[in-house]
Amino acid sequence: MRSFSKFIPQTTIYRLSLYLRELERLNSKGLTHISSKVLSKKMGVTDAQVRRDLSYFGKFGKSRVGYNIEKLAKKIRQILGIDNKTWKVALIGAGNLGRALFSYKGFRERGFLIKAVFDSDPLKIGKDLGGIRVKDVKDLVPTLKKGKFDIAIIAVPQESAQEVAKALVKARIRAILNFAPLRLDIPQKTILRNVDLSMELESLSFYLSKLR
Amino acid sequence: MRSFSKFIPQTTIYRLSLYLRELERLNSKGLTHISSKVLSKKMGVTDAQVRRDLSYFGKFGKSRVGYNIEKLAKKIRQILGIDNKTWKVALIGAGNLGRALFSYKGFRERGFLIKAVFDSDPLKIGKDLGGIRVKDVKDLVPTLKKGKFDIAIIAVPQESAQEVAKALVKARIRAILNFAPLRLDIPQKTILRNVDLSMELESLSFYLSKLR
Repeated sequence: MRSFSKFIPQTTIYRLSLYLRELERLNSKGLTHISSKVLSKKMGVTDAQVRRDLSYFGKFGKSRVGYNIEKLAKKIRQILGIDNKTWKVALIGAGNLGRALFSYKGFRERGFLIKAVFDSDPLKIGKDLGGIRVKDVKDLVPTLKKGKFDIAIIAVPQESAQEVAKALVKARIRAILNFAPLRLDIPQKTILRNVDLSMELESLSFYLSKLR
Repeated sequence: MRSFSKFIPQTTIYRLSLYLRELERLNSKGLTHISSKVLSKKMGVTDAQVRRDLSYFGKFGKSRVGYNIEKLAKKIRQILGIDNKTWKVALIGAGNLGRALFSYKGFRERGFLIKAVFDSDPLKIGKDLGGIRVKDVKDLVPTLKKGKFDIAIIAVPQESAQEVAKALVKARIRAILNFAPLRLDIPQKTILRNVDLSMELESLSFYLSKLR
């Protein structure tokens, strides 16, 4: 994989995922080409933005012809690291959120395979979750070290999240998706993404306030 | 509320939420001022970006002194429509995801109050969920119309999402947060935000690919 010397904004990565979804949708409709103008309009950004986002990764598209949909989708999948690749994911927390994430189809479709689930609740430990036995969170470090996991998802209550994060770092997990509403203290080299669902609602209330 | 004539990027609104969380954290630590430089560093964006984001809404901060943390947080809460205001939210879907969202503390803290829950499963209808009785989704339109709801959250399986969206539009809901992995067909005036959790994982796999 080529390395990217330039600083790539987080929002660009996010938009690449959005472009990919749109390209896949257009492809499934039998379309073969799209201009940056039409694509940008569909995505609600400027076409300069689309071109800038893609320019970090090379040259795409031809003037007058636009982007080849299938090729661009393939390239974006490569960039995002989801091209013919699977990622081994550990899920910490088998509560409502954990179970919802476990059965989330989109993960599997994109190559993110949840291969271990942990919880600290004796009532949950040992239970079967879609073919996987929920493990005691006490066994997290040895299990993840041995199993060479890539990504961990934290879906535990706020109070336990930091402790879980510490164990994940000890288990040499390099990427964490955190659902606990808490600023985790982890080493800089560990890649962290926080999901804060109230932020999504705040974006709605912003627009609703404007309508009032 | 003042109206915003300029086009405000979705990503700016998203970052406002991020800034707000950081400002609140700093405020709780007793800090009173912060420069755009320090704030931007903490948020992983450039300080020009911070200033541009805020510039849509007026002039903030003083040179040399920086931003007054409490004032800026208050202003951002106003902009986001979460300043001393509550929003009435309906939740459609009482499965794992729905129940996880229902018990999500962050919503309540920010003034988003889930006041009705709907499902189509006879085993779930009538059950108590944290003090609220789960209603039959068949009663969605009259209930929401009568109750003057602001926001609806769709947490139903993909197959039922479009039907639910149609009912929500009929019930004159103006803002929808959609968790179903599906492009909903709704009128342009309805504000829609889609949550696609695999996009968060794609951002992690992007960085992991770079490390390989």
